[in-house]
Amino acid sequence: MKRALLASAAFLAFASPSHAKEGMYTPDQLPEIAEDLQATGLELDPQSLTDLTSFPMGAVISLGGCTASFVSPEGLVVTNHHCARGSVQYNSTEEKNYLEDGFLAATKGEELKAAPGSRVYVTVDVKDVTDTITSDLGDLTGKARYDAIDLSEKELIAECEAEGPYRCQVGAFFGGMQYKLIKRLEIRDVRLVYAPGDNIGKYGGDIDNWMWPRHTGDFSFYRAYVGPDGKPADYSEDNIPFQPEHYLKVSAGGLEEGDFVMAAGYPGSTNRYERLKEVEYVFDWYYPTWVETRQDWIDTIIDTAPEGSDMRIKYESRLAGLNNYVKNRAGQLEGARRVGLKDLRAEREAALDAWIAEDDSRAAYGEAIAQLDALTEQSADANKKRFWYAGATTPALLDAAQRLYRLSVEQEKPDAERESGYQERDLTFIRQRLEALDRRYDPTVDKAEWMLFLEKYMAAPEAYRVAALDEALGLGETFNEDEISARLDAYYAGTTLGDTETRVGLIDADKAELEALDDPFMQLAIALFETEMAMEAEAKERAGQMGELRSAYMEAIIGWQKSNGVTTYPDANSTLRVTYGTVMGGSPKDGLIYTPFTSLEGITEKDSGVEPFNAPQAQLDLIDEQAYGDYALESLGSVPVNFLSDLDSTGGNSGSPTLNGKGELVGLLFDGTLESVNADWHFDPKTTRTIHVDSRYMLWVMEKVSGADNLIEEMTIVSE
Amino acid sequence: MKRALLASAAFLAFASPSHAKEGMYTPDQLPEIAEDLQATGLELDPQSLTDLTSFPMGAVISLGGCTASFVSPEGLVVTNHHCARGSVQYNSTEEKNYLEDGFLAATKGEELKAAPGSRVYVTVDVKDVTDTITSDLGDLTGKARYDAIDLSEKELIAECEAEGPYRCQVGAFFGGMQYKLIKRLEIRDVRLVYAPGDNIGKYGGDIDNWMWPRHTGDFSFYRAYVGPDGKPADYSEDNIPFQPEHYLKVSAGGLEEGDFVMAAGYPGSTNRYERLKEVEYVFDWYYPTWVETRQDWIDTIIDTAPEGSDMRIKYESRLAGLNNYVKNRAGQLEGARRVGLKDLRAEREAALDAWIAEDDSRAAYGEAIAQLDALTEQSADANKKRFWYAGATTPALLDAAQRLYRLSVEQEKPDAERESGYQERDLTFIRQRLEALDRRYDPTVDKAEWMLFLEKYMAAPEAYRVAALDEALGLGETFNEDEISARLDAYYAGTTLGDTETRVGLIDADKAELEALDDPFMQLAIALFETEMAMEAEAKERAGQMGELRSAYMEAIIGWQKSNGVTTYPDANSTLRVTYGTVMGGSPKDGLIYTPFTSLEGITEKDSGVEPFNAPQAQLDLIDEQAYGDYALESLGSVPVNFLSDLDSTGGNSGSPTLNGKGELVGLLFDGTLESVNADWHFDPKTTRTIHVDSRYMLWVMEKVSGADNLIEEMTIVSE
Repeated sequence: MKRALLASAAFLAFASPSHAKEGMYTPDQLPEIAEDLQATGLELDPQSLTDLTSFPMGAVISLGGCTASFVSPEGLVVTNHHCARGSVQYNSTEEKNYLEDGFLAATKGEELKAAPGSRVYVTVDVKDVTDTITSDLGDLTGKARYDAIDLSEKELIAECEAEGPYRCQVGAFFGGMQYKLIKRLEIRDVRLVYAPGDNIGKYGGDIDNWMWPRHTGDFSFYRAYVGPDGKPADYSEDNIPFQPEHYLKVSAGGLEEGDFVMAAGYPGSTNRYERLKEVEYVFDWYYPTWVETRQDWIDTIIDTAPEGSDMRIKYESRLAGLNNYVKNRAGQLEGARRVGLKDLRAEREAALDAWIAEDDSRAAYGEAIAQLDALTEQSADANKKRFWYAGATTPALLDAAQRLYRLSVEQEKPDAERESGYQERDLTFIRQRLEALDRRYDPTVDKAEWMLFLEKYMAAPEAYRVAALDEALGLGETFNEDEISARLDAYYAGTTLGDTETRVGLIDADKAELEALDDPFMQLAIALFETEMAMEAEAKERAGQMGELRSAYMEAIIGWQKSNGVTTYPDANSTLRVTYGTVMGGSPKDGLIYTPFTSLEGITEKDSGVEPFNAPQAQLDLIDEQAYGDYALESLGSVPVNFLSDLDSTGGNSGSPTLNGKGELVGLLFDGTLESVNADWHFDPKTTRTIHVDSRYMLWVMEKVSGADNLIEEMTIVSE
Repeated sequence: MKRALLASAAFLAFASPSHAKEGMYTPDQLPEIAEDLQATGLELDPQSLTDLTSFPMGAVISLGGCTASFVSPEGLVVTNHHCARGSVQYNSTEEKNYLEDGFLAATKGEELKAAPGSRVYVTVDVKDVTDTITSDLGDLTGKARYDAIDLSEKELIAECEAEGPYRCQVGAFFGGMQYKLIKRLEIRDVRLVYAPGDNIGKYGGDIDNWMWPRHTGDFSFYRAYVGPDGKPADYSEDNIPFQPEHYLKVSAGGLEEGDFVMAAGYPGSTNRYERLKEVEYVFDWYYPTWVETRQDWIDTIIDTAPEGSDMRIKYESRLAGLNNYVKNRAGQLEGARRVGLKDLRAEREAALDAWIAEDDSRAAYGEAIAQLDALTEQSADANKKRFWYAGATTPALLDAAQRLYRLSVEQEKPDAERESGYQERDLTFIRQRLEALDRRYDPTVDKAEWMLFLEKYMAAPEAYRVAALDEALGLGETFNEDEISARLDAYYAGTTLGDTETRVGLIDADKAELEALDDPFMQLAIALFETEMAMEAEAKERAGQMGELRSAYMEAIIGWQKSNGVTTYPDANSTLRVTYGTVMGGSPKDGLIYTPFTSLEGITEKDSGVEPFNAPQAQLDLIDEQAYGDYALESLGSVPVNFLSDLDSTGGNSGSPTLNGKGELVGLLFDGTLESVNADWHFDPKTTRTIHVDSRYMLWVMEKVSGADNLIEEMTIVSE
């Protein structure tokens, strides 16, 4: 019998390596894993990665929610298209539709103000402040403990920000076992330099979101500006480009399957160490309930706001967000089923228990863990109540009223004692949020949403009802649609908060003024206030207890993993992390293989001319002509568009520079595959893959399609 | 820079071979391609495949709509589960749910009657009758030509069937250039022997339909019975197993990636030679309109018949069919876009034109082709009219009334002169159809469907309105919902055709009796009759013209292809064909690879416990234990479940035995990938892949899961 090339089997063997790289390490942990970093292909000294103010980490920055990096000595910043798209939208008009056509500033003078609130944060220092925060806690527990930590954090932040134009934060690591004060230069003048049109930058749109194969040109450029004195300043024509101490060289070639890559970025949040009890709550109740209610929410918006209507335009971004998360969480549920998440957790907990049992001195861990599990069950119940209540209090203007009233209450205290989020340093964001509301609010849709969630609230178990809300809205035993509808109508008819000027103007109103206001949403906010404060206090009580127990639990995890030769990395918390691995396809399912690179030809193959598969004709023609320039990957026979790696990433990593072993920019991280989303809970080496846009595709588009030669010239391009 | 194993690139190169095997050859064509058959791996003498009564073709049979094969000397028949599922359903009760649990007859005595109408057709002779049919056509054109051919065909069939228990048919090949009389032994006593439950035989259900990766155990067993005299007979306890002259050995091992495979079967219909004009009509108008109206149809059924209702149960099979075809046709539209079907056709027609222009003696071809294109345009317009009219006359009871009335009209003529479908030989099928209606009919849903299609009919261009229908239903300019709804209600209130006994009883009624019947649907059928006859006559006129022109066109195609060294195979027409190629994965899209085999472990990976991913626990346990028995494929490390090949197949091929080079059964063909469905119009070697269930999986399930040792023993199993 003939024997064919068993290439697929060989590939399969390669695609399921034992060394897929779990781990979102803090830079200071890297020396601990130096050996593996170097064995995998890092050519830089691992020690050099720990200094956040030297190369290459000094070039990695945060945009708040996304990651980015400096790629020129004149403050040129590269990030994902989807991270800068808000600024493209902000500058687009019917005449100059940059979303469709893309935008390129031929000179610095043509650069455009980024959307309000755009920031570039450069981490300049990270200091361990665990002692400062925890040394005086003594016997404090519950809410008292929570408040003490909160106060310490606010003091540290205030002190840090007093030193200059910094935005500081305290990050809790290992569930509160460790605290770090992170000092970030806050650059407030950010300008849009270059973004391809959606037909490149968002190619594939929501359909390809979380999917492989992928062909998205997810890159855009900002520039950071500072005052003539070199210090951060508000936007001004006199401002000059920021000169970063370090910037990345951009690679035009060389990356291949199996090559080392690493990404530095700001992953938002993971739950790798959550206990089985939490997993059960989330996967048996929370996610399924969430997906079901959000699906209903989507249907409600679609039914209420006809496609193409002004109403619908205001809700497009909410719809996109809901669809995105429904897809993500359905993927998480499917992923948890596939890997057997609950069984894996049970096994891990049994192994940890065994380690604890090995040594009497570890007994305290066991006690803390038992208490942690019990508390998790309590929290789950409180969270369910909170879930239905949050739905029942969904109206946008109620949210605005609640924020305004809370602000007036907080403003009666000295700034340092105010609740986080209501201090002087937060006012800009509160104002922006109140302003932005009118672009996303329509009373008809808002009411339909409220009706939907009130019905769900009233159908939930009796125990989850909140008396103050029932009383304020006159809710009886069962949902009487007509009666409730009429009652809600009075809210929308009677409120003046829908008017932006009125709403934003109330920022300066004091408590008495708001209480005197004859506005139904404000009155409802006031009626609910004491109840909400009580719920918040209970939550802080649990958080205080939880922090203490979780510290003990993580201490046990670290000890146990160390005994197995494993370096424990902390769960993601929006602070700077490094993840590394190799360029690698994979087999997400039996019978299917993802190849590591996609090619230009795949764009033509997908292109139907209909959004989101509507590449510019000029681009399709270039592909047809095989006008690859210097950017082809020989083994692929074309210019690589996107590539896969086994890097460990999550939301917040978007825009992270992908670096080769020399620290050169070889791509931008922008997504994970749908089979990977469950990695937030469990990193499965077989299926977890991160998606990057290849720097060669970025340069090819810039050179051939957009004619962005000025920027290519500004950057340092390396080709080996 | 490190270089990794470039296995994926190597595989890609292998996955896009230049030799993918287009062609559904008639057995008599095989000697013409003998060289390639042998080079690809056929070990049998190609000449041996032309004799339909010797091995292996003598073992290949038709079930009418599906293909099957004999696998024992005692008439044991293997086919797809989805081909035999109607018989499983027919025998299932609430107590004995064979659909869920599967069915296995431990002895012949336990075998169950297959569903009414089940047949086994054994092709015993194929004779070229082109001369008989065409020699006397003289100058006949249009309808006269159509009628003359029709009459000849009916005479040939009558003559053939007079010889014994045969069901004969005349097949037109190459668009009417060639006619063959096909003589098939018709076995009427068919019994169900073994079928796994849906949780194996329909694993993946509608979700996995047309998809890869696939894990469907799509196999079942029938047995053919004949009277004690060895001749076909109606079901009787005295009947004995049919003893076929040939049966297939079943392979338990050896098939690998790259190995030769071929399939013999009865593909229904393809359009490989249709001209650009037809492609434009189908892909620009017909398929898109079809998909849109069918989507509305699906929504109408779902809205009218709530899930779980008795109403819904009656329409489940229609819903499944509509969903299946919507998926298929959407896939065809996408496939046509991807390969650039219209451009490909235009290129082919230009090449053919050039060949014709090379030689003056070919000028007549050019003229015929020009006329064919003009006629195709005319037909397209008539087809659009017919499309909307067909919708507007959708009610099930109108269809029954029309059939009954037409039958009464035809029965006034001698049998030989009656329209095909209304002859004595057709009465059994007419009766079965009238009987079956009550399991698929509900007046509420039927009316909702009628309303939907009347609205569409009235919204279509004025020119497509049919006066007789407008008059009978009193349809005005625009669709007045309330008015029309009231009018239709009268039909459902006034008819007695909903009663099965009444309806079926009318088979014997003569024309006058039906005309005297005070039934609104019958009256409507009569009111439309003359118009329908006129439309039919026009269609026959066009068909007569078309046949003549298409023969000339196909003659040109054959001549042109021959000049390029290509053997032209005729479009599929439900007659026996052979297709061959190799076991082969593929790359349906840039960035994605289908591996050629799926494995047992893929079942566990997909299994959620929820239908259609609910494998039996016993099976999951066996997989967990790696209890592969003798059925593992070493290079896969497991038992192969399904495999891909580059064979050329379409609907009707379902159940086709997949044979290795020695003619042993290595699997059953049961589906194509969604990227392949456009192969009905254009065979794209890169994406066209046929899906088979591996005989090793079949045997593994039979031995390990179902304990069907009696059948394994009955068959001849070979393991090299």
